[in-house]
Amino acid sequence: MCSTLIHQNPQILSDKRTVGLVCKPGRMEIERIADRIAQLLISHNINIEIDPGSCHVEQDNIVSIPIEDMDVDFVVTIGGDGTILYTLSKLKDRATPIFCVNRGTVGFLTETGTTTAFDALEKVIAGECIIETNVNISSGVGDKVFPDALNEVYVVSKIPGRLLTMQIFLDDVRIDYGRADGAMLATPSGSTAYALAAGGSILAPDVNGLIFVPVCPPRFELKSIVIPDHATLEIELVKKGTSGLAVIDGQTRWDIEPHDKIWLKKSEAVTKFIRLYDNYYDRLNTRLIPRTL
Amino acid sequence: MCSTLIHQNPQILSDKRTVGLVCKPGRMEIERIADRIAQLLISHNINIEIDPGSCHVEQDNIVSIPIEDMDVDFVVTIGGDGTILYTLSKLKDRATPIFCVNRGTVGFLTETGTTTAFDALEKVIAGECIIETNVNISSGVGDKVFPDALNEVYVVSKIPGRLLTMQIFLDDVRIDYGRADGAMLATPSGSTAYALAAGGSILAPDVNGLIFVPVCPPRFELKSIVIPDHATLEIELVKKGTSGLAVIDGQTRWDIEPHDKIWLKKSEAVTKFIRLYDNYYDRLNTRLIPRTL
Amino acid sequence: MCSTLIHQNPQILSDKRTVGLVCKPGRMEIERIADRIAQLLISHNINIEIDPGSCHVEQDNIVSIPIEDMDVDFVVTIGGDGTILYTLSKLKDRATPIFCVNRGTVGFLTETGTTTAFDALEKVIAGECIIETNVNISSGVGDKVFPDALNEVYVVSKIPGRLLTMQIFLDDVRIDYGRADGAMLATPSGSTAYALAAGGSILAPDVNGLIFVPVCPPRFELKSIVIPDHATLEIELVKKGTSGLAVIDGQTRWDIEPHDKIWLKKSEAVTKFIRLYDNYYDRLNTRLIPRTL
Amino acid sequence: MCSTLIHQNPQILSDKRTVGLVCKPGRMEIERIADRIAQLLISHNINIEIDPGSCHVEQDNIVSIPIEDMDVDFVVTIGGDGTILYTLSKLKDRATPIFCVNRGTVGFLTETGTTTAFDALEKVIAGECIIETNVNISSGVGDKVFPDALNEVYVVSKIPGRLLTMQIFLDDVRIDYGRADGAMLATPSGSTAYALAAGGSILAPDVNGLIFVPVCPPRFELKSIVIPDHATLEIELVKKGTSGLAVIDGQTRWDIEPHDKIWLKKSEAVTKFIRLYDNYYDRLNTRLIPRTL
Repeated sequence: MCSTLIHQNPQILSDKRTVGLVCKPGRMEIERIADRIAQLLISHNINIEIDPGSCHVEQDNIVSIPIEDMDVDFVVTIGGDGTILYTLSKLKDRATPIFCVNRGTVGFLTETGTTTAFDALEKVIAGECIIETNVNISSGVGDKVFPDALNEVYVVSKIPGRLLTMQIFLDDVRIDYGRADGAMLATPSGSTAYALAAGGSILAPDVNGLIFVPVCPPRFELKSIVIPDHATLEIELVKKGTSGLAVIDGQTRWDIEPHDKIWLKKSEAVTKFIRLYDNYYDRLNTRLIPRTL
Repeated sequence: MCSTLIHQNPQILSDKRTVGLVCKPGRMEIERIADRIAQLLISHNINIEIDPGSCHVEQDNIVSIPIEDMDVDFVVTIGGDGTILYTLSKLKDRATPIFCVNRGTVGFLTETGTTTAFDALEKVIAGECIIETNVNISSGVGDKVFPDALNEVYVVSKIPGRLLTMQIFLDDVRIDYGRADGAMLATPSGSTAYALAAGGSILAPDVNGLIFVPVCPPRFELKSIVIPDHATLEIELVKKGTSGLAVIDGQTRWDIEPHDKIWLKKSEAVTKFIRLYDNYYDRLNTRLIPRTL
Repeated sequence: MCSTLIHQNPQILSDKRTVGLVCKPGRMEIERIADRIAQLLISHNINIEIDPGSCHVEQDNIVSIPIEDMDVDFVVTIGGDGTILYTLSKLKDRATPIFCVNRGTVGFLTETGTTTAFDALEKVIAGECIIETNVNISSGVGDKVFPDALNEVYVVSKIPGRLLTMQIFLDDVRIDYGRADGAMLATPSGSTAYALAAGGSILAPDVNGLIFVPVCPPRFELKSIVIPDHATLEIELVKKGTSGLAVIDGQTRWDIEPHDKIWLKKSEAVTKFIRLYDNYYDRLNTRLIPRTL
Repeated sequence: MCSTLIHQNPQILSDKRTVGLVCKPGRMEIERIADRIAQLLISHNINIEIDPGSCHVEQDNIVSIPIEDMDVDFVVTIGGDGTILYTLSKLKDRATPIFCVNRGTVGFLTETGTTTAFDALEKVIAGECIIETNVNISSGVGDKVFPDALNEVYVVSKIPGRLLTMQIFLDDVRIDYGRADGAMLATPSGSTAYALAAGGSILAPDVNGLIFVPVCPPRFELKSIVIPDHATLEIELVKKGTSGLAVIDGQTRWDIEPHDKIWLKKSEAVTKFIRLYDNYYDRLNTRLIPRTL
């Protein structure tokens, strides 16, 4: 019923007692944290699958397995929001819960800093945590389906600095048209990310909606619009000769040709974050919005 | 279930066969249109109650009755959105359907221009129309309840150009705080009015949400947030010494004192517009948003 | 030639060796700082004129004199930007240099915090400082001249939440027109204050320009425009029946009637801040703009 | 002294009596207008150099010469602002006056529509016109100099939807830093184009300034800033691994590598438009800004 469903005191570990580990690559201090987290998990008799492309930890009980082949109870990411979105773009089962340690610039989606990570992880293993379920967006052109997005699908001109001319349809009714750098459809989670930077309003996590946000429309032709999450939005590229890209969570890029009509709607899939408590507004006020009071 | 419910082919006239008439006052050409509309209604054996404060039409079958005492099947307004909001602020039964003829600057809420008004009214009398139901906002301080709002409740400093310091609560959780000229909660209908001018996103009519929009926050402390329409928002004035006003649809103003906590939520009441068809996006694109294509 | 002229190693004290002292009233800790600052000045054989309305310090060498009657080498303010703007609104000679200690929420205009205030003041007395000269705006209706503004003159509807309809003239050419809550003309100094909150761009201190910023224009009719500082802007209220106010630096309010044409232009007067060095961009980046890097 | 210098009653034709002709390619109705304009020029004994890449007109007195080799008294463009910017990107002498006939979507820079083009051109040939001089921006990396820009130089991530991390320097002082899609420096002419869509204020034509505008900065780190036109702005890409592009007037793209520092400043070159009179604010109000009054 809700965009974000809060599940209290969940069963975190199954019989397989296996956790995945993914890091932001190329930073020594992150490998040191990964090493300590691995030790903590091992001390609880938990098996570890570690992504060889992003992290190197040498210990017993650790198996090197790429993200796309992980079969785990949950994944620990160490990095920022980019590391989370990268992990999601690779995971076979997007509903695998993720516990996120922050070593990024903003880390709005992350749960814990590095100093508190170990205590927090102890609590998670003890089941003293919640699962926060987040809506995803499905998109594609005709039968071709793009990967799901946690934050947003951004349709943008393939050539930087060139405008797209678009028609926007909501459940087959043309609701908007005009030119812009591009336009995106974002989830409540994504409404605090790129969509916010482009001028959209924030959607509270339990709003049953998605937000359409144009980027830099000249002459103010296109406006950001919140649509119900049972609707299908379509973006049609009308200008002869201009090719576009669908950018999924800033991670993968898919070609869109002139006259293509990309459809976007709420996905069957969801993303699950492990959190110590329902801390959305705490994170909003401390990580995202400047404060002076 | 929906913010805006569309009711097809409604029963427009009851046995009382009575229609109210309200005009934007002081303009001769509007009185002439009122006169012709009265003739049309009379030719259909419909009784007319006319607001003496806004309009003077001398004909049989017309009774002078102020808006607050009207007991009618529907009301015809001639003017702009201001005339509609004024009528709503006076009507005893807010759910009385309204058919709106545009003689205002923008007239986003209105249904028809003056040239097409007579044909349109013929269709309405024949029941070839729809009823569009719009959410209202209820607000107050403690037990004191302000009038319902169709568009928005705007909490603003009583002294123009002075900031309010506010704390914002959503279902008793403090979600935001900071300084601004003021802040409003708007319905989907109001999301295309003042809330849009203040930087909020548009809410499609069938989104089950309301939008909180701060006005001119220095240092970008407060952000516009869409909340679910089952939630209660509270705005608490915290700064010692600064008094505020709650402005309901730009029509009436109610004192708010420092430390008062104004509550705002979806009302039991609704507003009903008579329209020829479900023309929301047509009105959005032709009346609200500049077009060059 | 420049909006902000930087004067290196100025002569701070004249033969009268007298300094004014103004506080944000009603706060004990500010009076304690005022007391210590008074001691420091006395130890340098400097006379003190203290504003009786805002501050109570009992010591020899201190004379109680209201701001408007002060005849001093410079004024020390303790408080925030509001205290500075209040002092400016009272000072007979607006060009009296001001040294500003921050005890406010933002304090963008202030020079020093309270812990560093005493060392900083020692340097000022030794002449190891600069004088930063800031443009003021003069405004009025016909022969009636309003007080000068350091930051902005804001023309706003007298009734909160009601729109003004305005025509804008630049050197007698009508350049813009439309409706809004109000509109302001701001100096480079004011471009980081209310004008920024209303959506205007920042003017670097040495830009020879002023910025016109409309507040919440519906339908995006009016745009913020930077004009050369040798031009005269006029704002004409055209809507029958709507009265306005000219708000000068948020301090004083002056009636404007429908059909009045308020003129605004660069003033002969200037405001002078005493600073330890030319620290504009340091203040911009640490006090005004949120940072995450 | 001024960004835009107005030159009254200029000498439009020299002894060579030669005019260039450039069209938006691929549209029959534009070729028909080009044909009629060619006839009009020939009837005044004016020679014509026509760009073979954009336009095909078969008549005597017409020579096919690419834009880059034209040696003419002025150029007539038929198309929109894109056609003008394309012509400028090719012209050997950027100061060649241009007379612009509008067949584009907005055509803010153009002088005349197609129906009035012929009368207007008669007046131009008779010298009953003005020359409007517009500032250009020069930019480059080290010794490598990019082509001049009439509107803006936009530094953007090479990969659409990826952020750049930038440091901004003004005359060697670091004034700003943060992440964004990109950032641009725009002239007064460009302040009504892409810079406006990205949220910048408009610069009146006679403001001696340039405007820096970031595009979609998350967390609102970077702000649009007007700088004096005697200053040099530098944008340094700091993030390891992210490459950028400098987009000149939306026409040409130049690689920028991580750690490159692109400099931008007012150019020695200018752009000259032929207009019937000084009609900047007329064009602003009729072509750029939506109006309802």
